[in-house]
Amino acid sequence: MSDGKLALHDRGLYRFWYRDVIRFGDLDRQGHVNNARFATYCEGGRVAMLDEQIRPLLGADDSFVLASITINFRREMHYPGEVEIGTRILRLGTSSLTFGQGLFSKDHCTATAEATVVLLDPATRRPKPFPEEVRADLWRLAAD
Amino acid sequence: MSDGKLALHDRGLYRFWYRDVIRFGDLDRQGHVNNARFATYCEGGRVAMLDEQIRPLLGADDSFVLASITINFRREMHYPGEVEIGTRILRLGTSSLTFGQGLFSKDHCTATAEATVVLLDPATRRPKPFPEEVRADLWRLAAD
Amino acid sequence: MSDGKLALHDRGLYRFWYRDVIRFGDLDRQGHVNNARFATYCEGGRVAMLDEQIRPLLGADDSFVLASITINFRREMHYPGEVEIGTRILRLGTSSLTFGQGLFSKDHCTATAEATVVLLDPATRRPKPFPEEVRADLWRLAAD
Amino acid sequence: MSDGKLALHDRGLYRFWYRDVIRFGDLDRQGHVNNARFATYCEGGRVAMLDEQIRPLLGADDSFVLASITINFRREMHYPGEVEIGTRILRLGTSSLTFGQGLFSKDHCTATAEATVVLLDPATRRPKPFPEEVRADLWRLAAD
Repeated sequence: MSDGKLALHDRGLYRFWYRDVIRFGDLDRQGHVNNARFATYCEGGRVAMLDEQIRPLLGADDSFVLASITINFRREMHYPGEVEIGTRILRLGTSSLTFGQGLFSKDHCTATAEATVVLLDPATRRPKPFPEEVRADLWRLAAD
Repeated sequence: MSDGKLALHDRGLYRFWYRDVIRFGDLDRQGHVNNARFATYCEGGRVAMLDEQIRPLLGADDSFVLASITINFRREMHYPGEVEIGTRILRLGTSSLTFGQGLFSKDHCTATAEATVVLLDPATRRPKPFPEEVRADLWRLAAD
Repeated sequence: MSDGKLALHDRGLYRFWYRDVIRFGDLDRQGHVNNARFATYCEGGRVAMLDEQIRPLLGADDSFVLASITINFRREMHYPGEVEIGTRILRLGTSSLTFGQGLFSKDHCTATAEATVVLLDPATRRPKPFPEEVRADLWRLAAD
Repeated sequence: MSDGKLALHDRGLYRFWYRDVIRFGDLDRQGHVNNARFATYCEGGRVAMLDEQIRPLLGADDSFVLASITINFRREMHYPGEVEIGTRILRLGTSSLTFGQGLFSKDHCTATAEATVVLLDPATRRPKPFPEEVRADLWRLAAD
């Protein structure tokens, strides 16, 4: 877990994978997948990793809010086809978590992305630091 | 309020109007608005009429479930542009309500639609008859 | 191939299947798959059958236009999960083709649908009758 | 036109405005506008500025490809409502153009964004430098 130096377009970086189907309805007038659908594919991987690996570490009332996303487009995506989304923890802040992602279709990395989410205190809806033991678990996930 | 004999492509039929903006992202590979977005435009008009005119007649816990939609496509829609959605009550059943709709863009009716929703009992989630006084109000709305 | 008497919610009716992934982004405020996404799932099955089984029978310039869709909702769909879309030819007109469809998720039929497309003459963009030999092939597909 | 020092959440920064309607279908399970729809709203403003102010300066065959987008989320957006999208040129590279954007709904800035597009040579589909006279026009637009 270093600082954005990781080559997000490298499949070897990811152990958590999510797979989606490219829909005819994802295409835009230019005949390729619309840019906003890349954000949807990223969301698919991120939500799956949160649900399966991260939320179980937290209280039932804890929630996350999305603070920022960046997508770097590398190639067009086409229909029909699938997209594989690799997701990993890239950085861990006091109350925030940054995911690194790679989208892959037909053997190419079509985009890389970063997304930062912030843990919210359920009562105040303000940022809340990750508890120490959770932090240790997240580091372990991140080091994977 | 008769039975589907109404000319749903006639603007004069509607008093309740909702307006949406056609998005670049609504287009598909063929360069026109994707068919599923017609369903989204219809939903816009239907939800607005429900929220503004129909839900206020009902209990706070009453809810509707969508039972069916039919869309008859008449013309392509193009970007940029707007779509005006006319919505009216077409039929009133024991627990169901059928809306008739017309979509209009650039002076043409681009589609007509019917959608049937069913009133649910909040406790049982089963269909629930409209109370008599609500029925009278709905007939009045429908006769508008 | 009879007339709408077919039980579209019966999996046994379909030999052509298409599979899509339910996305977190398909959900609406009610926590279930938004109704317009049912139209997108139907489109997925229809486009796949057109591309794989029907367009190869036709000229490269022939195209279809969607004339109507009807969706009958039977159950909510939830995330995460998949949706299987069964599609078959239901009726064959002079220039039109009606598909019958069933959507299935987690062992339940969640919706049935019909969609009618019309074959267009590439020059005039007017409806064009299916050539006789194509008609025979379509009947064969329909009888499957 | 400086370097990201501009306060993108300040309405005064923008002279080019685009307006969109928040749809019921833009909401997700959390009852607020889904993050990927922010990307769609940004696309609306960007495509409008490209079509109205930038493409007229270029050859008919020139096209742009989206290289990257970053969205910083500041507040939830809710239905019903509208979103106003302010867009301006933020940076001008040899072949690239970076837009700065602010999304505003109900008197609040709900997100800021940057998007970089690259001009493509129609023949080679490789990046192509902006011609000098176009560059001067773009600087003028940017200085607005």
